[in-house]
Amino acid sequence: MMKEAISRLNKLFENRVRLGIMSVLIVNESYDFISLKETLGVTDGNLASHLKALEENALITVNKQFIGRRPNTSYSITETGASLFRDHIKALEDIIKA
Amino acid sequence: MMKEAISRLNKLFENRVRLGIMSVLIVNESYDFISLKETLGVTDGNLASHLKALEENALITVNKQFIGRRPNTSYSITETGASLFRDHIKALEDIIKA
Repeated sequence: MMKEAISRLNKLFENRVRLGIMSVLIVNESYDFISLKETLGVTDGNLASHLKALEENALITVNKQFIGRRPNTSYSITETGASLFRDHIKALEDIIKA
Repeated sequence: MMKEAISRLNKLFENRVRLGIMSVLIVNESYDFISLKETLGVTDGNLASHLKALEENALITVNKQFIGRRPNTSYSITETGASLFRDHIKALEDIIKA
């Protein structure tokens, strides 16, 4: 039912950059900032602000390390994030099909 | 490709109420305000503001008439609206599949 499916959409994933981030992280164990930026075709600032929002909601985790001498920041989806994102995608599919 | 699919998402349809409105109007020739409100489970003000934005972008048209003595406002999707919405759905599907 349309009303019910719409209520299952998650506002946290409405934005297209966030949709892209979550789509990448749900199929990759870990993904670094530079690669994410290239994959999604977004600016540093835009990507950073959406990553921060997702992190603050415990949907993704950040891992900062050094590869050789270079700092490397990578991201992973949390169990909660994966579960909520799957619910969101299911709701989207239900609306499109309805 | 993810970057290309994300760029094909249309900001005008990002919001879930708009996604709902367009999903209803793409499969119904015409739909009135009250029915739309019930189908989507949203408030008058929220629905009205999104309908206005879609109308201003020529994605839907408004038809005001009287049924008996009662005013009745109904909405239809435009050709442009249907075409752009189909592009948006296709992009969503490509991202989800990617």
